[in-house]
Amino acid sequence: MALDFDRIREAHDRIRPHIHLTPVLTSARLDAACGGRLHFKCENFQKAGAFKSRGAVNAVFSLSDAVARNGVATHSSGNHAAALARAAGLRSIPAHIVMPANSLRAKVRAVEGYGGRIVFCAPNQTARETACVGIVAQTGATLVHPFENEDVMAGQGTVALEFLEAVPDLDVLLCPVGGGGLLAGTAVAAKHLRPDIQVIAVEPALADDTAVSFRAGHLVPRPTQNTIADGLRTLIGEPNLEIALRLVDDVVTVGEESITAAMRLLWESLKIVVEPSAAVVYAAFLESRIPTSSRRFGLILTGGNVDLDALPWQPSRR
Amino acid sequence: MALDFDRIREAHDRIRPHIHLTPVLTSARLDAACGGRLHFKCENFQKAGAFKSRGAVNAVFSLSDAVARNGVATHSSGNHAAALARAAGLRSIPAHIVMPANSLRAKVRAVEGYGGRIVFCAPNQTARETACVGIVAQTGATLVHPFENEDVMAGQGTVALEFLEAVPDLDVLLCPVGGGGLLAGTAVAAKHLRPDIQVIAVEPALADDTAVSFRAGHLVPRPTQNTIADGLRTLIGEPNLEIALRLVDDVVTVGEESITAAMRLLWESLKIVVEPSAAVVYAAFLESRIPTSSRRFGLILTGGNVDLDALPWQPSRR
Repeated sequence: MALDFDRIREAHDRIRPHIHLTPVLTSARLDAACGGRLHFKCENFQKAGAFKSRGAVNAVFSLSDAVARNGVATHSSGNHAAALARAAGLRSIPAHIVMPANSLRAKVRAVEGYGGRIVFCAPNQTARETACVGIVAQTGATLVHPFENEDVMAGQGTVALEFLEAVPDLDVLLCPVGGGGLLAGTAVAAKHLRPDIQVIAVEPALADDTAVSFRAGHLVPRPTQNTIADGLRTLIGEPNLEIALRLVDDVVTVGEESITAAMRLLWESLKIVVEPSAAVVYAAFLESRIPTSSRRFGLILTGGNVDLDALPWQPSRR
Repeated sequence: MALDFDRIREAHDRIRPHIHLTPVLTSARLDAACGGRLHFKCENFQKAGAFKSRGAVNAVFSLSDAVARNGVATHSSGNHAAALARAAGLRSIPAHIVMPANSLRAKVRAVEGYGGRIVFCAPNQTARETACVGIVAQTGATLVHPFENEDVMAGQGTVALEFLEAVPDLDVLLCPVGGGGLLAGTAVAAKHLRPDIQVIAVEPALADDTAVSFRAGHLVPRPTQNTIADGLRTLIGEPNLEIALRLVDDVVTVGEESITAAMRLLWESLKIVVEPSAAVVYAAFLESRIPTSSRRFGLILTGGNVDLDALPWQPSRR
């Protein structure tokens, strides 16, 4: 069964008791700076600090009791890991989490705090997947892939559902893209609710696999570099790209300096803590990559899990 | 005419078009850590980044056209300055702002951004007041004192008014105290709306003039030291202390390390940017100064204007 709007609506009904309906913020100062009308959907306020709670809860609560009993497993650089550990805890089942050894300390602590069982691995996609397959074989746990899983995509699509219910007349929706779980759900939900909306994916130029694949029309294997937007280092998944090719209007890339500047401006203007991966959507405006002309923009701020000891504008860390 | 609840209600009607009705946030994690139920009134999201916008707008919009024409003047370490500059701008009248030379850069930039005319002075109360008297004599501007002005106090009291409308059953309200404008308005509003509520003022131990004066029953002149909570270095005003002696239940002091730790925990848990002066109310819980036992607490987070280049947990600045 392909991902369609009904599954996103069902996901929303399923997860609503376990997630926050996050607020939409605006800023006169940021609007004046770009000439558009910007609306920020604050998934940094979401449970476990990121939109990933939506997909994780939907996946965990979609399992039958018999299957759920053996637990769930995943590999993730951080936010999906914490979200899955939390979702498993809500259902009182074990969560086995494979994390790269270079994950942010704050994200490791979060997974531990939710009772996840962590297995560290080398920081590359092959090592992550191998470790995860081993755990599934040992425990009988269900693999909940961070973005190639349709229940996860449906859960992430509830962000756009809520966003367009709160602000129905958005002209453009901007969405960060890493593995493409959020992008797939966003595109399906947004184009169903408002067929003439533009959906634009944004990613770091140092992790431009989606932009390159999007332009080629098929998956182009392409290593990503060490962007500060750690949540977007993941390569886009095959099913996610397929949906993007069908429904997404454009993919924009942004530089590292713009990401840092955007993050800082969001903190200063909105008084909220967002992570670099969330800031890419606003970075696109700083780089004048998006024609504004008084249009109404929706920007998905995906998460707020940062290491406050290693902020990108601290001189010692540059 | 003394400060009473009717003036706070009138102030709310007057300022509402020009301020945000700020949200109240909660955190399961912070509740679990202290055993109480904490509600945070987020004035860091207020216009110009702090509750000061309320008092400033009320004072500026209470002036007759003839008096307003000559402008307003004040001395302030920062947030009142920006708020008054903004309020004056809304009414298209000049704002003359005396600021201590050691004011945070972010706060100076904010005043400039709102079109305020800045005069720098030595960082002590006498120099501030002298400079301000000179400007008033030259320009005919109306002095809007940051906390000894009853229109300002009435405006600040609208925080508690909104807070108790949003969460009517609070048992305890915690309020930072510097000059005591917010404290006076808070005490009057809270005790009117819920006579059995406890109102507790919190200040840095390095600026404990209110605690000492409160216990003595009269104003005790007492220099403050260089606390990180820069907004609370101001000495409490005489009329403000008078109201506190009548309506406030206790004054608690907190240490510098607790203030920094509290600020960081609020950033990490609530994903919001608050300044050190706001964090003192949560620091009181970290120091176990407040018996919790499942009671419902209201904590006023007063502002979110920080210099992101000089965060208190950055090693280079310690």
